Formats: sequence, C-alpha cells, structure tokens
Amino acid sequence: MAVKVGVAGYGVIGQRLADGVSLQKDMELVGVADVAPTLSIRALVERGMPYDLYCAVPGKEKDLEAAGVPVSGSFDDLLGKVDIMLDATTAGVGAMNRKLYEKAGVKAIFQGGEKNDVADVFFHGYANYDKGLGADFLKLTSCNTTGLIRTVDCLDRCVGVEKAAITIIRRVADPGDYHRGLTNALKMDKAPNHQAVDLMTIMPHINATGLLVHTPVTHGHIITLVVTPKKDISVEEAIAQFKKHPRIRVVTTDEGFTGNASFFRYARDLGNNRSDMYEIGLWADTVVKSGRDIMFAINIPQESVTIPETMDGIRAACGMQKDGNDGVAKTNEYLGLGKWMTPQYMED
Amino acid sequence: MAVKVGVAGYGVIGQRLADGVSLQKDMELVGVADVAPTLSIRALVERGMPYDLYCAVPGKEKDLEAAGVPVSGSFDDLLGKVDIMLDATTAGVGAMNRKLYEKAGVKAIFQGGEKNDVADVFFHGYANYDKGLGADFLKLTSCNTTGLIRTVDCLDRCVGVEKAAITIIRRVADPGDYHRGLTNALKMDKAPNHQAVDLMTIMPHINATGLLVHTPVTHGHIITLVVTPKKDISVEEAIAQFKKHPRIRVVTTDEGFTGNASFFRYARDLGNNRSDMYEIGLWADTVVKSGRDIMFAINIPQESVTIPETMDGIRAACGMQKDGNDGVAKTNEYLGLGKWMTPQYMED
Amino acid sequence: MAVKVGVAGYGVIGQRLADGVSLQKDMELVGVADVAPTLSIRALVERGMPYDLYCAVPGKEKDLEAAGVPVSGSFDDLLGKVDIMLDATTAGVGAMNRKLYEKAGVKAIFQGGEKNDVADVFFHGYANYDKGLGADFLKLTSCNTTGLIRTVDCLDRCVGVEKAAITIIRRVADPGDYHRGLTNALKMDKAPNHQAVDLMTIMPHINATGLLVHTPVTHGHIITLVVTPKKDISVEEAIAQFKKHPRIRVVTTDEGFTGNASFFRYARDLGNNRSDMYEIGLWADTVVKSGRDIMFAINIPQESVTIPETMDGIRAACGMQKDGNDGVAKTNEYLGLGKWMTPQYMED
Amino acid sequence: MAVKVGVAGYGVIGQRLADGVSLQKDMELVGVADVAPTLSIRALVERGMPYDLYCAVPGKEKDLEAAGVPVSGSFDDLLGKVDIMLDATTAGVGAMNRKLYEKAGVKAIFQGGEKNDVADVFFHGYANYDKGLGADFLKLTSCNTTGLIRTVDCLDRCVGVEKAAITIIRRVADPGDYHRGLTNALKMDKAPNHQAVDLMTIMPHINATGLLVHTPVTHGHIITLVVTPKKDISVEEAIAQFKKHPRIRVVTTDEGFTGNASFFRYARDLGNNRSDMYEIGLWADTVVKSGRDIMFAINIPQESVTIPETMDGIRAACGMQKDGNDGVAKTNEYLGLGKWMTPQYMED
Repeated sequence: MAVKVGVAGYGVIGQRLADGVSLQKDMELVGVADVAPTLSIRALVERGMPYDLYCAVPGKEKDLEAAGVPVSGSFDDLLGKVDIMLDATTAGVGAMNRKLYEKAGVKAIFQGGEKNDVADVFFHGYANYDKGLGADFLKLTSCNTTGLIRTVDCLDRCVGVEKAAITIIRRVADPGDYHRGLTNALKMDKAPNHQAVDLMTIMPHINATGLLVHTPVTHGHIITLVVTPKKDISVEEAIAQFKKHPRIRVVTTDEGFTGNASFFRYARDLGNNRSDMYEIGLWADTVVKSGRDIMFAINIPQESVTIPETMDGIRAACGMQKDGNDGVAKTNEYLGLGKWMTPQYMED
Repeated sequence: MAVKVGVAGYGVIGQRLADGVSLQKDMELVGVADVAPTLSIRALVERGMPYDLYCAVPGKEKDLEAAGVPVSGSFDDLLGKVDIMLDATTAGVGAMNRKLYEKAGVKAIFQGGEKNDVADVFFHGYANYDKGLGADFLKLTSCNTTGLIRTVDCLDRCVGVEKAAITIIRRVADPGDYHRGLTNALKMDKAPNHQAVDLMTIMPHINATGLLVHTPVTHGHIITLVVTPKKDISVEEAIAQFKKHPRIRVVTTDEGFTGNASFFRYARDLGNNRSDMYEIGLWADTVVKSGRDIMFAINIPQESVTIPETMDGIRAACGMQKDGNDGVAKTNEYLGLGKWMTPQYMED
Repeated sequence: MAVKVGVAGYGVIGQRLADGVSLQKDMELVGVADVAPTLSIRALVERGMPYDLYCAVPGKEKDLEAAGVPVSGSFDDLLGKVDIMLDATTAGVGAMNRKLYEKAGVKAIFQGGEKNDVADVFFHGYANYDKGLGADFLKLTSCNTTGLIRTVDCLDRCVGVEKAAITIIRRVADPGDYHRGLTNALKMDKAPNHQAVDLMTIMPHINATGLLVHTPVTHGHIITLVVTPKKDISVEEAIAQFKKHPRIRVVTTDEGFTGNASFFRYARDLGNNRSDMYEIGLWADTVVKSGRDIMFAINIPQESVTIPETMDGIRAACGMQKDGNDGVAKTNEYLGLGKWMTPQYMED
Repeated sequence: MAVKVGVAGYGVIGQRLADGVSLQKDMELVGVADVAPTLSIRALVERGMPYDLYCAVPGKEKDLEAAGVPVSGSFDDLLGKVDIMLDATTAGVGAMNRKLYEKAGVKAIFQGGEKNDVADVFFHGYANYDKGLGADFLKLTSCNTTGLIRTVDCLDRCVGVEKAAITIIRRVADPGDYHRGLTNALKMDKAPNHQAVDLMTIMPHINATGLLVHTPVTHGHIITLVVTPKKDISVEEAIAQFKKHPRIRVVTTDEGFTGNASFFRYARDLGNNRSDMYEIGLWADTVVKSGRDIMFAINIPQESVTIPETMDGIRAACGMQKDGNDGVAKTNEYLGLGKWMTPQYMED
C-alpha cells in the first residue's frame, strides 16, 4: 500500500517535493498546503489543480478563494489523511508545525533551513540512512551539504576520508527572487561555514572546516573541496568512482559545461520538469592533487538537489526499505537518476 | 497535407522553432541542422533524438559522430525533403544560406538577427500578414520588435496610433551564456534604436523613435512605450483591449509579477516546455496617461517570443491560410495561446 | 560671517554633504553627527578626524569610544553651535529630528528619502530657489528628481515645457551595499513614479508621468525623457542649451561614455574626491525627436548629485543670496562646476 | 639622482603605475605613452596634463591632437629619456615592445598579463627580490598571485610552508568595463589555475594547486587558501603575523568589512587616490584550522595591488636597494603603507 504524503509550503522546495512524491510509485501525494495566492499557487490553478490544496492557516481560505483558488480543506484535514508530512515552510515555521504533527500522530521531514533540534535525526540518504529508520522526525541536510556529502561519501566508501576543507561559492537568490539579492558584491561569512559543521555531524569520523562567499547569481552554488583521503587515490580513479554515482554527473568544460548556468541550461534543453536537475555536477577537468590531497569542484542545483534525499528520508522513516542501498536505489529508479549513465558516458 | 519544415541552427531559437513546429498539427518537422556537439545537441542525444539531425556543413559529421551524435544526412539531404526552412543560424550565416535555399527551391524564414535585405518581406504575423502571403523569403522582426508591435497593433486596431516613443531596457544575455555579458553596468546605445525604425517599416503610418539601454540580466527585456493614439482612449479601455489579445498576458505587480524574472518563474511553475512563455507580459498597473498619450510597460521573453509569429510566417509564405486572422488563430490554437483567458482572468 | 552648518548622519550622503560644505568659502562645517562606528566613521578616524564627530543619540558614546572614535559632544552640543542642519539620517529619523531642530531654533534641510511633509518647502536650486528663501525647513528633491529637473528646467527656460514622460532605469544599491540588492532581475514599480509627481510639485505648470524599473547595478541611474516643448526646438539647439548648463555634462558614446559606469570611471580618472561627480551626464547622441517631442537619456550619479542643490538650499534658507541665479552661481563656483566648460568642450 | 621612469599604456594599470612612481621621492616620472583619446586620456587633459603624454605608435598623433590632447613626443623620444619602462600595454604588446626597449638600452618591467618568457625574471618584491637585482627585464606576478604570495610568504618566513590549495573567486571585470563581463553565471576554469603554478615558480619549495571561478562582480577578487605549514601555528599567532605585514590589512566582518566591495567603499571614504587600496584585505574571522592546515580568506584589489611590487621591481632592477627588506621598506614608506598600523589597530 502506498505511503500517504502531504507537503506543507508550496514554494520553491515544496513544489519540487510534491513533484518528486508524485513520481514515486509506492507513494501517494495527498495534497499540498499553503496560505496565500502566490505566483506558484496561481500556476497551480492555471494548470487545473493537479495537486489538491489545503489551507495551512485557519482564516486564510478567503484570500485564496478571492483569487479563484479552490481549497480542499484545512491543515488538520490534510494531517488526517497522511502518514508523513514534508515540511517546506519558511524557516522557523517548521518548529511550530512539529507540535501539530505530533498531535496528529504523523511523521515529518523538515528541510535544511530549520534548526537541527526541530528533528530527532539529521539525515542524508547515502551517508546515514540507517539513522533515519523508523524515526518520526527527520531534518534533511541543506542543499550544499546534501550535494557535497554525495562526493565525500563516495570517496569515503572507496578509500576513506580523513579531512576536508570546503569553499562554498554560494548563489544568493533563486530565479524570480526579489526579496533577497546582492549587487556587484561578494559577501564573506565568518568561518567555519555550517556545511562543514553539518558534514561532521552526519559523518563524525571526518574532520572538516570551510569558508563561504555569497555571489550575485541564481543558477547553482559551486563548491571546491580539498579532501585528504586515508589511502592515496589517483585523479583517474577518483573520477571513475564519481562516474558510478547516480546522483553525480561528471562533466567537462570542453563539453560545454562552462559554469553553473550550463547545468540549468542543459536541464532546459533536456526538457526537464521546471528545468530542474536532481544530480550535482562534478567537473572532471577540475580534479587535481596536491600531495595526497585531492581537490575538485562541484555544482549544486539548489532548488532541486535535496528532493532525492528527501524521498530517501520517507523510505527510511516509514521503513519502506530497511537497507539504505535499497532505499536510495528505489528513489533513483523512480526519479530516473542514473539513466543517463549510458555506455557512452561510462566509457569516457 | 502537412507542410514540411526544416530548422537550420539548433541553438536557443532553433530549438524552440523545432518545438513550435512539432505542435502545429498541419506541419511536419523533417529535421534540424547543426554543425557541432554543443550542449543543446548533447541534450538532443540524451533525450533519444526526438528530432533528426542533419549536418549543416560538409566535413563536420566526424565531430558530431565522435561525440556520439547520430547524423541523418547532409544539409542538402534536408533541403531535399522540406517545403520551407526556418533559419536560426548565427547572424550573417543566413545570408549565405539563402543561396542554398534558392538553389534547392525551398522557401525560408530568417530570424531578426539577419539584415533586412536577406529577405523579400519583413514580417509580423499580426501587423502585416498579407505582405507575407506566398513570399519565398521572409525575415521576422526581432524579439523586442515582435513583442512591442503586438501592443501597438492592438491599440492601432482600436483607436489608431499616431506616434510612439520607446525605451528598451534590454537583457544582455540568455541564461547559460558566457560569451556575452555585462557586469554592474548599464550600456547606452545611440539613438534611435533599430526597433523604432523597424516598427515604422512594418507599420509605415506610425512615427516612432526610441532609446535602448543594456542591463546585466538574462530573463526578458522590459520596454516602456509612450503611445500617442489618434483618438483618446481611457486606461481602463486600453487594458480591456490588451486582455483580449491571445499573445499578451495582462498581469499586476500585486499578483506577484514583480519584474521580468517573475514571468520566467511562472513559466517554470506552469511546467512549460523549457520554462518558456510565448506571450509578452503587460503590467496593468503601469498603464498611465499624460494628456492623450498612453504609457505602459511590457515584458519580452526573448528566447521564445518570436516562435508564434514565425509559425504565422510559415502559414503566410506557404499560403496555408489566406487571411491573417485565420493564420494567427491557427498558430494560437496549436500553441495553446489564449487558453489561459479563463472567465476569471477576463473579468478582472 | 560664515554660515555655520552641521550634518546629521555620516553615511553615503552625509559624508558628501560635509565635504560639500567644506568647499563653500562662505560656510563653516561645525561637525557631523552619527551613532555607531560604521566603516565611514572608521575611515574618518583613520584620516585623523578632519571633521568633529558628535554623538547623535545619548548613550551611544560608549560604542564609539570603544572603537577608538573621538567624540566631540552630544547632538544638543552640535545644535547649539550651528545655524542650519543638513539631515541625512535614515528615512524616517529626519521627521523626529525636526522637533529637536525646532526646539534648538536651527533651520534644517532634509534629504529626498523623507516624506514631503517633513518640511515646509520642497526645494530645487534651479527650479524654485525663491520658494526656499528664508524658509526654516526645506526638503530636497531626491537624486533622480534633482537631476532630471536640471534638464527639464533648462528646456523650460528656453522654449517652455508642456509635458514629460519619464522612464527611470534605477540603480538598486550603492557600491559597498549588502543590505539591499537585486540579482538577475529587473523589478517593476507601479505607475506613476514619484519622480514624475515630484516634478509636477516643483514645476506645477508641467504635466508629467512615468515608470520606474530597478536594475541590478550600483553606478548611477539612467533616465529617458520624452519632453513635449511648447515651442519646437531642434536637436542641435537643445544640445547647445544643455552644454551651457554648469551641472550637466554633455558627452557622447564615441568619446567613451559607453554607459552609466563610464561616469564613475571618469570621475576616478579625474581624481575626484570619493570618485564622485556632481554633474549629471547627458548623451548628445541620444537626443532625438518624434514630431515635436524631444527624447534623450541622462545619467544620475546618485551619491553626489544632490550636493549642489543642497548647498543652494542653505543659501536660500539662510538668505545668503536673494536671487536664485546668484545662489546657484556661488555653489557652482565653490564646487568647481562648469570649470570643465573649456573652449574645446564648448565648441564641440 | 632619481631613477627616470616611463609608463607604456595609460589604462587601468598604467595610470596607477604613473601615480605610484610620482609618489616615490627617489624616482622621476618622465611621462606616459598611449595611442588613442580614451576616457583616461581625456581625464588627463581635463586635469591639465599632470603627466606628459607620448604617442606610442607613429601616426596616431593626429587622433590624439584631434581630440585636443597635447602630445610631448614619440615613443622613441620617451625611451631616450628614461632608465626603465613600466609596460602596462594590452597583453601581447609588451612582447613586441621588449625589442624596442632592448634597442633603446632601457630596462623594463612587464605586467602579469604578459607571458612569462617576455622577461628574464618573474618577480615578487617580498618573495624573490634578490632575483630581480640588476635584471634588465622583469615580469611582475599577476594581481591575484601578488596578493596571495604576500600571505604565503608571511607564513613561510614564520613557520615554513609545505603546500597550499587555492580557490580563486575572481572578479570578472573592472568598474567601467563593458568589453568583458558575465551575467548571472559563475564560470569554471580547468585546473590547476595559473596562480598556483606561478606561486611554485616564485617559491619553488612549496607545492601548490588550485581552482578558479569567475564571478560577475568588479570590486576585487576573494581567495581562500588552505595552507599546510611545516610547523604548527595557532590561529591567533597567524593573525598576529599577518597584522605586522604593511601590505596586509587584517579586518573583521564585524567592523563592517562585509565583503569585497567594502574595501572599495572604505578606500573611497578614506579619500584615497582613485578610490584605490594597495593592501590586500585579510579577514581575521575567516582564519580556521583543520588539523595542522590553516585556512583563511583574502581580498585582492585588482586594479592597484601590483603597484607596490612594481615599485619594488624598479628598486631591484636599478639596484636602488641591494637588500630586499630595504627595497620594500622604501616603497612602503613612499606609498604610506603600514601607516594605518596605529597602536589601536595593532592591539586588537
């Protein structure tokens, strides 16, 4: 029987979570909840309401209906129909929602913007699936952490990782954002960045630190990693390992992946839903060594990168697959991850 | 019998022309032509070659095949199978291609980047469909001109237009471009801009001038127009006229259409192909008057806005519909233009 | 005897007001007031305190002194020593400060960010100097309005102006700003823009409207104006009139004034204080006509453009010159405005 | 007797080299050479020709004179009067100019844009002054390399440096540039970046690698370094060492140095010539450790950072100071470097 899933917050992440759940053949998307006739909600209406909308806050139905948005019920109504909620509300709201989820007896997965203590387990599908097994409340790693752990975990499984120094070149807004932005400036954060700290929480055997610089772009973060492996690994072997990972696309600048915006453009050219990409990009022609340290650059599609690991989280929390390898494999199958690993790609 | 269409150049515009033709039930897309394994061509491969690819320049087959791109034949092969070519090659190449089209006895429509003398008729589906009837070589108006003429023609049909002063706030690159760009600067062009001159070519009874400023953004031009109508028209009546136009979306900032990037985001949220929009946007809350002059702002989605008028051009050149109203109506029907004109929208 | 001037708020505008007053040989800068050890205050310290600093809010002395900033006294101390205050505090604070100024019996000039009702007179040095004569509280026009009025007033004095349609292409942040910004988006404001409304307040015989678009750049607004003169004026004659104005620099793109950032760069190359320019730029090669309407583009250096008119305001409020022409001439002389009008420039 | 210096190319770097030489009391700026009436040359004219201008290419005098630019002679005339030329021409021209310098028997220093083989010695004032002693042709390290070597050399003198992994977050254009730019994209370079390679050329005992990402901003590069010292050094001790360096400004985000643009703004507020800063910035609150590795972020003011090291180069090449410590000390004295090291700053 399909696990019944609801989504709270139909914004940038919430929309993509709903889409992602819809693609999982062993899950059922019951509906999404929001409070106002935003552009995303208006698009839902223009599309003919493929997802049922529940009003997340009592009293807000009027605003929605005044804008011509059909409302299927209250937040309580939605909670009454689901096994698990994916909470993609504005940071801070999730902590309040947790009480409602507890009262209704439903599980929940919170997004990376919430504080860690909103949940019992801080989760990453590949790095600590077991910790999420049967848990009631998970918090996903943030977009950057989710993506970079894919690569660190990949190397760790292969040769072991001792430490990592991480430089995050962060995109500052999403396409269509006006409420946050940066103009002709690079903004510096104090060290260490939370992603390095989070990496150590998820993978406690690794020592990590890092810096973060905000840049005035919208199409994906770029991260450089300096990873010290436990055993030496050649550039070629590292690239070969990355190529086998269904959530990492290994590319080169010569192919035309000139920068972060190329992944966005390629996703459009592929006809991907919302022009999204679930995979991170990893440039093979940035992999270099300095002594035993291995350095490389990756691209993080911030809007969609956490969707696969959130699906993994549902699988773990609801016990759909007991083994992490099985869990991520199901997610990958339903999201079509790795299907681009054609022989041609693999032989490169 | 379906008109057979080929596309030369599978870049930003060429891809969208191919998609557009595919949606016209009375046309058949024979194939597309290009020369190198660009990202767009690589995406075509990853999608499983929904369109046949022909090699546009003899000798380049090897480069394509080395990158794993299946080639269906030469440019001559393609020309031998089509009634009309849509030429979306780099500016300047179209003029050379014209000779090949003449030799092969096929019609062609060139995009706005070419010089006007590449074609016999300078064309806009709404403003001068008749001129294109049966013509062998058409050149489409550029993206800005195409979009702004929709509004000027709309007012002209209603109250007559005497003159227009046009300020184009131009996006300087497309998403994913690295070869052109502008950083923290607004670049000023000499006056008048070519769009004002082109408007007068297409609609010779109107006096027009204008300025153009380049801005460092990628998601759509914004244009302000100061239009002097022959007869007075109220703000409300003008808005009502614009709302009836299937290629103009009348929106407001209050709905969430905060700027040019909102249209792009809305197209993504709608699930539109490649996150595109064929309609221009027009902000109802920018329509103001100064004396009899009427001023307003529009948004031009530069990558896709000329697709409908190019479909109109095929209809005119191939005589598929003798009457312009019928021609644009067919294009609108197949592209789904105007279907968002729900009663709810119309009553606003 | 020199008029004694104080400046409240040592931010982007306040610093430049202090510099401007320092250059007026018939004024004395008593000191500046601020509340926190901002970068600007730290620079004042590193420069050796060329201006005395007063603490604007009781209790904040400790913060300043903890950062090594010498404090010369309280806000009341400053008010006790001056004839007039230039209020360049954050928008909204000026309205509260007015009460302190009234109590202390000092005049004040507020900047454009305050609401109009903060002052008795809404002022522009060229367009309504007389209204400011002897007034206790003036509010300056904002940067865009100040700059565009220079050109409209210039034409008005020459041939009379009937109406104007104004498109403001607004820079969204100043260099070094992080708290406001826009990334890859053009933001649209509802019409009409306040600058058109303000123009009509200052010059009530003119009918004006306009639109405003925010752009992600920092070096100066660009404005296009469509001006309907009462009497016909040729492009050449209009340019000649603009060239005679000491606060307008007439330039061309061919000289290298490629856009808004060129003025900033030129000011740096000139060795101007803080790389500022008091003059607006006007591109001679954007001046065009459509019927009798005349259209052209100007550049507004937002950080410094209001300094001359504020100096004019001190002259008017304090009755230093009874005639507006004399008042602006004194300001121009002390700020060196028009000295670049060499024969070479004038003959162009 | 003062060493006589000429500057070839009066662009972004050439102007600043001329200014820098003017401040050295033991040097004489004979003149600058250029070919066209650029904005920078027009500014020189408006300033009253503080530097004599020589025409760099025969036949171009007419263009200059037509624009009202006084010409003091030919390039040969300039070469006949100088001991050493600073070549800041467009990349590639320097290699051709070298032949003219050899023929005229004058020494020359080339900027970082030229290929290394343009000169006999690849030079950095702090890291290899001795190599430049008496040399005829030096090439300066590029802006990023110059700045980052200051920090690596600083640590190397203290505890020895074994290796470094460098992430360069590069500004893509200078303020006022229109011919190069990037819009809403981060551009990725293949690894390793040339700066890491250059570091190893200048300091052959260090192993280095690194990546470079281009960002759409104009006010200074940001670099993160992961440095492996030979001996352990604490964060506090490292900061203390950096604070003693006259060409490194140690700052914090809490003081208001929020990002790269803050340094530019601070230079404006300081009233610095052309709003420039010779020092690199180093954020004390980015210095962190991972194992023995020390990681930190610096800011590189690309337009002016190489001026001090070029002055050092003149001193070395002309044998003005035989000892590197004396050489850099003289440069620092005349450029006012380190004078901001007030007790207050040093005690922080």
